[in-house]
Amino acid sequence: MLDNISSQQIKKMTLPQLSALCEEARQKIISTVFKNGGHLSSNLGTVELTVALHYVFDFPKDKLVFDVGHQCYTHKLISDRADKFESIRKKDGISGFPKREESPYDCYNTGHAGTSVSAILGIAKARDIEKKDFNAIAVIGDGSFNNGLIYEAFNSLRLLNTRVLVILNDNGMSISPTVGSMHEYLEILSEDDAQKEKRDKHAKIFERFGFKYDGVYDGNNLAEMIDKLTEIRERLSRESIILHIVTKKGKGYEFCEDNPEATHGISISSSDSVSEEYSEVLGRTLTRCAEKNEKIVAVTAAMTTSLGLGGFFEKFPDRAVDVGICEEHATILCASMASMGLKPYYAVYSTFLQRSYDEIVLDICSQNLPVTLCIDRAGISGSDGETHQGVFDLSFLSSIPNLTIAVPKDVKEFERMIEFSTRFNAPLAIRYPRAGKLIFKTSSPIIPGKWEVLKEGSGNFVILACGERALTLAMSSAQELQKSGIEVKVVNARFVKPLDKDMLDNLRESHIVTVEDNMLIGGFGSLINNYFCASGKLIKNFAYGDTFITHGGVESLMAEHGLSCSAIIGYIQNADR
Amino acid sequence: MLDNISSQQIKKMTLPQLSALCEEARQKIISTVFKNGGHLSSNLGTVELTVALHYVFDFPKDKLVFDVGHQCYTHKLISDRADKFESIRKKDGISGFPKREESPYDCYNTGHAGTSVSAILGIAKARDIEKKDFNAIAVIGDGSFNNGLIYEAFNSLRLLNTRVLVILNDNGMSISPTVGSMHEYLEILSEDDAQKEKRDKHAKIFERFGFKYDGVYDGNNLAEMIDKLTEIRERLSRESIILHIVTKKGKGYEFCEDNPEATHGISISSSDSVSEEYSEVLGRTLTRCAEKNEKIVAVTAAMTTSLGLGGFFEKFPDRAVDVGICEEHATILCASMASMGLKPYYAVYSTFLQRSYDEIVLDICSQNLPVTLCIDRAGISGSDGETHQGVFDLSFLSSIPNLTIAVPKDVKEFERMIEFSTRFNAPLAIRYPRAGKLIFKTSSPIIPGKWEVLKEGSGNFVILACGERALTLAMSSAQELQKSGIEVKVVNARFVKPLDKDMLDNLRESHIVTVEDNMLIGGFGSLINNYFCASGKLIKNFAYGDTFITHGGVESLMAEHGLSCSAIIGYIQNADR
Repeated sequence: MLDNISSQQIKKMTLPQLSALCEEARQKIISTVFKNGGHLSSNLGTVELTVALHYVFDFPKDKLVFDVGHQCYTHKLISDRADKFESIRKKDGISGFPKREESPYDCYNTGHAGTSVSAILGIAKARDIEKKDFNAIAVIGDGSFNNGLIYEAFNSLRLLNTRVLVILNDNGMSISPTVGSMHEYLEILSEDDAQKEKRDKHAKIFERFGFKYDGVYDGNNLAEMIDKLTEIRERLSRESIILHIVTKKGKGYEFCEDNPEATHGISISSSDSVSEEYSEVLGRTLTRCAEKNEKIVAVTAAMTTSLGLGGFFEKFPDRAVDVGICEEHATILCASMASMGLKPYYAVYSTFLQRSYDEIVLDICSQNLPVTLCIDRAGISGSDGETHQGVFDLSFLSSIPNLTIAVPKDVKEFERMIEFSTRFNAPLAIRYPRAGKLIFKTSSPIIPGKWEVLKEGSGNFVILACGERALTLAMSSAQELQKSGIEVKVVNARFVKPLDKDMLDNLRESHIVTVEDNMLIGGFGSLINNYFCASGKLIKNFAYGDTFITHGGVESLMAEHGLSCSAIIGYIQNADR
Repeated sequence: MLDNISSQQIKKMTLPQLSALCEEARQKIISTVFKNGGHLSSNLGTVELTVALHYVFDFPKDKLVFDVGHQCYTHKLISDRADKFESIRKKDGISGFPKREESPYDCYNTGHAGTSVSAILGIAKARDIEKKDFNAIAVIGDGSFNNGLIYEAFNSLRLLNTRVLVILNDNGMSISPTVGSMHEYLEILSEDDAQKEKRDKHAKIFERFGFKYDGVYDGNNLAEMIDKLTEIRERLSRESIILHIVTKKGKGYEFCEDNPEATHGISISSSDSVSEEYSEVLGRTLTRCAEKNEKIVAVTAAMTTSLGLGGFFEKFPDRAVDVGICEEHATILCASMASMGLKPYYAVYSTFLQRSYDEIVLDICSQNLPVTLCIDRAGISGSDGETHQGVFDLSFLSSIPNLTIAVPKDVKEFERMIEFSTRFNAPLAIRYPRAGKLIFKTSSPIIPGKWEVLKEGSGNFVILACGERALTLAMSSAQELQKSGIEVKVVNARFVKPLDKDMLDNLRESHIVTVEDNMLIGGFGSLINNYFCASGKLIKNFAYGDTFITHGGVESLMAEHGLSCSAIIGYIQNADR
C-alpha cells in the first residue's frame, strides 16, 4: 500500500485500510531502521497520530511542524517519499529529520528540542499577516515540554493573537524518562481519565496562556484520533488548542516498548572496530574519581545513559541530576554549584551545547568557575545530519576567555584528562567523538598548553592535529608518506587552548599542516594561523585579546585592550616597510 | 549614615533609622547615577526590599542572587562598599552589577535575564550536598519571569529536592513594559488583594512546581517587608517560597516614576559629539522601507524603544511583536515567519544575541532563511562591564555557514545597508555600536563581499578595518602617519563575511593591518589570517569549510569535506618541501 501512497489518497481510505496502512508503515520503519539506523521507538509511537493527521488535515496547505523531528518517519512514508524511504539517513538519501529542501510537506526543519511551538506560532502569525487560510499544527513530545522555549512560546500566544494546534505527544520519555514538575503535572492530567471535570480544573496552567486544553486521548487509537482531530479542525478557526494524547513509545514492537530508552536511536555499527565508547570511559572514570572526591557532581540534560553516566547516577544519586531537556539551566546549575566550591561536570552532546553558549560565556567563564564540560559526539556525528553535527564547538568556545579546551587523542588519554580535570581549578572543556577506535602508544603527562609528539620526522613538514579522528588521519598519512621518503612529524595538539607556544615557536621554519574535526573558522587551525600571523611580518591584527573586558569608558577600554591610534601608529612606524 | 554602614550594623537599627537609611540610599543612588550613568529606576524601586533583606537575613552567610543585577546598588551601598560607591561603573571603580571578585556579599555574578533562579537552586543544592546551613534567596523582576530559564529552573525544583526563596519583584516593567501571559497572570494575582482565597486558587501554577506562593505585598513598605521576610525566614527550612511583592520602578523620584522606561538606564554623554544613534537610523529607515514592503516585520525582546523601533511598532502594530525577554523564541519566530515568505528583522543588543546562538545556527542559517539580525551595542559597550560587552558577536557568528555579516562604517552606510537588506534574500547580520559619531565622505554601492577604499596609500601598508570605531582609528592613524611620510591605505571592510577576495588577492604583497572592535579569535582579523594562511606556503589547514554538513556516514562525510588521508598526502606531496 505504501508504495504508491500520497497524502491525498489517504483521505479516500476506509478505516480498515488506514489501519492496515499503519501496520505496513510500522513494519517498514522497523525493517529500515534496523538496516540504516535511526530513531525507532519515537517513530513507532506516532504512526496512528500521523496517519490521522494526514487523513483529517490538508497538507501541504496546512502546516505541520514536528518538534525535534525524530518522529517524522511515518509522515515521510505517506507524503510522496515512500520510494525513497530506504535511503533514509544514507548519504544522498532522504534525511531522518524534516527538511524543507526535500518536500513541500516539510515546512520547517527541526532537530533540537522545544522549537516547534515557537515555529508554528511564527507560521501562524505569517498566515494572519498575509491573510491566508490554513491550519498550523505542532507535534511535540513531553520531553520537549521541559524546555524553556516552550514556556517562552506559550507566553506570547496572546501577544501574537493567533491560532495554533499543539499536539502534546505524551509518552513519558525524553531520550531518558521525562523528569520534572511539568512531567508530574502531565501525569496528573493523564491519570484523571474518568474525571473530566477534575482534569479541566487541573488544566488551568495551559488556559492561563490562552490555550484550550483537550485531553487525554489514546494516540495509538486510530479511530479516536481521527474523530478527535476532525472535531478540533473545526474549532481551530476560533481558538488555540493543546491536544494531550498518550502514546506508547516503541508501540507495536515489543522489544522497543520494553526498552524505549535503549531503542530511541539505533546505531548500525560500522565495519571498523570500536575499542570503547568515550561515554563509557567518562562514566567509569568519573565514578571512580567521585569515590575519592566528594566535591564531584554530575549534571545532564535528558540523556544520562547515552552519555555514559547511568552508573554514576546510580552510585551518587545525591550528587547527580538530570534536569530534562534544559541545557541552559543545566549550565547555570553547574556554574552556581562551582561557585560554592563543588566540582561539577556537565556532560552533553556537542550540538546541544550550542544552547548553552551565553551561559558558558557569562556564568562559567566570566566568573572563572571550575566547571568541566564533557562534550560528547563532537565532530561529525553522521547520519543525523546538519542539526546534529558537532562541528561548531571549537569555533564557539575558542573565543571565550578563561576556558581551557582539551581534545584527547584516544580513550586512554581521555581517562587521564578526566583525572587531570579533578585537580584543575578553572573552566575546562573536553571534546570527544562517540567511538574510540584505536589506542596510540605514547603517553605523557597532561599539562595545559603542552602538546605531545606522536611521531618524529626529519623533514620540513609537521602535522598538528587534535582528537582521535584527526590524529588517525595524520598518522596514517605520515606513514603513507614515509613510503615515498617524506618524513612528516605528527603532533598531538591535545590542548586547543592554550596552544603550546614553546613548540610552535620551534616550528617557525617548518611547513605546518593542521587537521581537526571541526569548522576551520574559529577552530584549531584558525588559532594556529592567528599565532603565526600575529608574530609574522605579513599581518598584524588589532582586536581584543583573550580576556574578559570589565567596565569603564568605551574609548579608554578600547585603548587599554589594544585598539588605539597610538598602538596602530607605533606598530606601523616600527615595522619593516 | 551610609558612610560607615555595614550589613551587620543594620540589624541593630530601629525602624525610623532604617527608613532614614532608605532615604539616604535613594538620594545617593540618584546623585551618583546622574554623575556616572547607570541603572536608575530599577534601583530606586528596590531600596526598601534590600534594606529589609539585610535586616532580616545574615549576609554573606546567607546567599543573595540578583537577577540581571541592575538592582544591586542599595545592596552595594550597605555591604561595606559605600565609600567606593561614587566610583561605580568607572574604570577601576566598583561594578554596576554583582561581582564576586568585589565582595563576599556578591555570591554570584549576573547580567543577563533569568539566570537567578537556576543559580540559587545550584547554590542551595551545593549547600545540601555539603550539609551546610544557610538561606538561599533570589530577587527577580517580572520582566525576567518571561524568560524560559525561569521555567526550566522551576521545573527542576522538586528534582533537586532543595529549598529556596524567590522574591518576585513585580513592577510591571522589563526595560519596556512587561508583556505576555505570565505578566497578565501576575496582574491577576496583584489585583485580588482583598480576596486571599481567590488568589491562593490562582497561585496554583507556582504550587505545581513545588513552591508555596505568598503574595502580594508592598515592596516599598519597609515595615511590611521586614515582618514578611522575618516570617518567611522561619519557613525556609521546610519549604521553597515565591514571595510576590509589588514595587514602583523609580520609586521616590517623580520623573522616574513617570518615565520608568526612559530612566531604566541613564547614559552620561561623553564629550564627543554624537551625530545620530544607530538605533534611530534603524527605526527611521526600517519604517520607511516597511511602508513600501509589506513583507517586513520586526521582532524585539523587551527593549523596543532603546533599539529605535518605537515608531515602527506604533505604525505597524500587526507586523511587530515584542515577545518579552525571550531571545531564543524571538529568533525562531523570525525564522519561521521567514519560512512563510515574510522578511523579518530581529533587533537585539549584541550581548543578548548570545542567547540565540543555537537558533541562529539551526533555525535561521541551516534553513538559509532571510532573517536580518540588527545587532545593536556591538563592540565594547563600556560601563556595564563584561556581562554587556558586545565583543563576541563576530566570533560566534563567523563560523556559521550561509550567514552574511555586514558592518557599516557610519550611520549613512547603515541606512543604505538596511535598504540593501530588504532586497537580500538570505541570512544577514548587521552589527553596529550605539553612537554614530562621524560621517565618512565616501559612498559606494553595497554589494556583499565588496569592500571600499576610504584612503589610497602609495606605500606598503594597508589597514583593513570594519565598523565606525575601527575605521575612525584607522583613518586617524593614517592621517597621523602621513605627517611622517608614511602613506597608508585604508579599506572599509564592510562585509566581514564574505571577504572581498578580489581585493585581498591584490594585497598579497602588502603589509596588512586589521582593526576591529571584537575579539581577535574568530573575528575579522582571524578571517584575514585564515585567508592568507590558506593560500600561503607556510600553513595549510584541514578543517570543515564554510558550509553545513548534511547526513551520511562519518568517514565519508569527513572525506567529502576535506578530511582524508588522500587529501593530506596529496597536499604534502605536492607542496614545496
